[in-house]
Amino acid sequence: MVIDIRLESCVDHSYPIHLGALGRIGHGAKVAVVTNPTVSALHLEALLAKIDAPEVTVVTVPDGEHHKNMATLETILNALFEKRFDRKSLLVAFGGGVIGDMTGFAASIYQRGIDFVQVPTTLLSMVDASVGGKTGVNNAYGKNLIGSFHQPKAVHIDPAWLQTLPKREWSAGVAEIVKMAATLDRAFFEWLETNDLRQNDCLREAIARSVQLKADVVAQDEKETGLRQVLNYGHTFGHVIERETRYETYLHGECVAMGMVMANRLAVELGLLQADEMARINGVMARYDLPLQYAVKDAEAFYDAFFLDKKSNRGKITFVLPKGIGGHALVSDAPKPGVLKAIKGA
Amino acid sequence: MVIDIRLESCVDHSYPIHLGALGRIGHGAKVAVVTNPTVSALHLEALLAKIDAPEVTVVTVPDGEHHKNMATLETILNALFEKRFDRKSLLVAFGGGVIGDMTGFAASIYQRGIDFVQVPTTLLSMVDASVGGKTGVNNAYGKNLIGSFHQPKAVHIDPAWLQTLPKREWSAGVAEIVKMAATLDRAFFEWLETNDLRQNDCLREAIARSVQLKADVVAQDEKETGLRQVLNYGHTFGHVIERETRYETYLHGECVAMGMVMANRLAVELGLLQADEMARINGVMARYDLPLQYAVKDAEAFYDAFFLDKKSNRGKITFVLPKGIGGHALVSDAPKPGVLKAIKGA
Repeated sequence: MVIDIRLESCVDHSYPIHLGALGRIGHGAKVAVVTNPTVSALHLEALLAKIDAPEVTVVTVPDGEHHKNMATLETILNALFEKRFDRKSLLVAFGGGVIGDMTGFAASIYQRGIDFVQVPTTLLSMVDASVGGKTGVNNAYGKNLIGSFHQPKAVHIDPAWLQTLPKREWSAGVAEIVKMAATLDRAFFEWLETNDLRQNDCLREAIARSVQLKADVVAQDEKETGLRQVLNYGHTFGHVIERETRYETYLHGECVAMGMVMANRLAVELGLLQADEMARINGVMARYDLPLQYAVKDAEAFYDAFFLDKKSNRGKITFVLPKGIGGHALVSDAPKPGVLKAIKGA
Repeated sequence: MVIDIRLESCVDHSYPIHLGALGRIGHGAKVAVVTNPTVSALHLEALLAKIDAPEVTVVTVPDGEHHKNMATLETILNALFEKRFDRKSLLVAFGGGVIGDMTGFAASIYQRGIDFVQVPTTLLSMVDASVGGKTGVNNAYGKNLIGSFHQPKAVHIDPAWLQTLPKREWSAGVAEIVKMAATLDRAFFEWLETNDLRQNDCLREAIARSVQLKADVVAQDEKETGLRQVLNYGHTFGHVIERETRYETYLHGECVAMGMVMANRLAVELGLLQADEMARINGVMARYDLPLQYAVKDAEAFYDAFFLDKKSNRGKITFVLPKGIGGHALVSDAPKPGVLKAIKGA
């Protein structure tokens, strides 16, 4: 005997991404702002002045990728339970990608799911991490290995927060901009080659174009079953670098930059990219002082580590590679010697 | 400037509930069976004989409601990482509601979501917990406070497993059957009054009718924004009993039974139920030796504990009460004195 349970539903979780001076964040129920000590010291007062809610709680968690773990997640959840947050409550992620990913994950599992909004304060989270609903934490086995898809209700991007962003973190954000331009939008890449993101109007334009690219990709493939994989360009290599260096030596965007350099070498190796195109992509990153060369100790161990990556499918690993400037290819049959060569960079 | 991200999608996660002798569970990728020592000792061999997969791992976690927590969840997740489970892998929940809820939650957050199937071995999980996609764990603040909605790919209900179920656990499952009949299906309730579930053919019939009721409710309200709340009859009171007794003294179904008795008193108090109807509902539970009276120490403290319940919405608590036999009402304005009276039962 078979009883069928019919669960066909159409859901609309579209949301607006506001770019410009932060407007009011209103909510009829309790609000918790999740942030870190750095952002809090610089900008919390300005944020709180914009929130309309009957009760606002601030949850401050330690800064940095190596605190993006289950223990910190439980700190956030417990703070909400202490304040008796109910299912109508709202979380506000106020910080970079680490804060955004953890806050989104907390929102997705607190009482089986509550709302959250993103107020990114780093360039990386403005152009990439805050849009698209990927949430999660790291663990001993790798990055973002525990998490969910949980879309925010809104994203509020105010470039004014970037005035206090350390230069190194700012450059790490540029890596994700280059990532999207190089694989998705030739015209945007060429614009990057001829404009200076250190100028505010250029930066604002680059943020808008990046967010639009990201939004288009996510709208076509929310759960990463196809096209969305293109956003992992540089990440398959980069995740291994992050893990090998215990999330301590480099910023995420720096690892992505070094990962893109490896991916570019593999793309040249496989005939997808010309040597001069590789030089152009690497060249844009070099202009913003991103690290481009990772000193690989053991290329075999580096290779082996791919197979713990989330994107490893039944023992295969799919590389996202640039195909000319502005194009991309998903390659799951790259020969190991070629990959080792790309890793070593010799 | 506002960029809209369009995310309208129609998803079909319908699934079959198979009732009868367990058929084959086939899967092209790795399978992990999550179970507890009791079920494993009795039935693991029989289950494994039914699984077709290239690699099968067994994850055994401690038995009981007080192990349904984040620590056990991490044990399950780490076992999967150790075995390098990828996104195509399948989890099989083999046990009662605790195993089902934790396995479903693990599946929902492992690498942002993988598939799982339910193979319930207790009466409670066959008629209620295994169907509907509610997953989660308990914490110091209450039951199922951390979790998600994640539907299984299939539920396989084989009443043969019940032959080894302790009598007390069996009765706890009957509580959930009575719960659904009393609030959703007058004819089924009357059938329960005149049939003996200790007879195998009656039990099978009751399981089928309960599962059908549950499936109908979930199909109409997957995420519990309305009708599905009816399934919480007895649970608002029952959860407080569970928490006060630290999940150690009573089984979940026993707390639900005692909670239904409290809810019935409140329903009589509010004129929703006749005294003789209350006696009939309590009478069916008494036939199966369910505990009906909880010795309340401090009714005020009991009352206060409601407001930490997930269903507490901005300081209000909604009670699901029977409205005659086979009907129900959601009451969110019950006067406190009446509720205290129902709690005390004096």
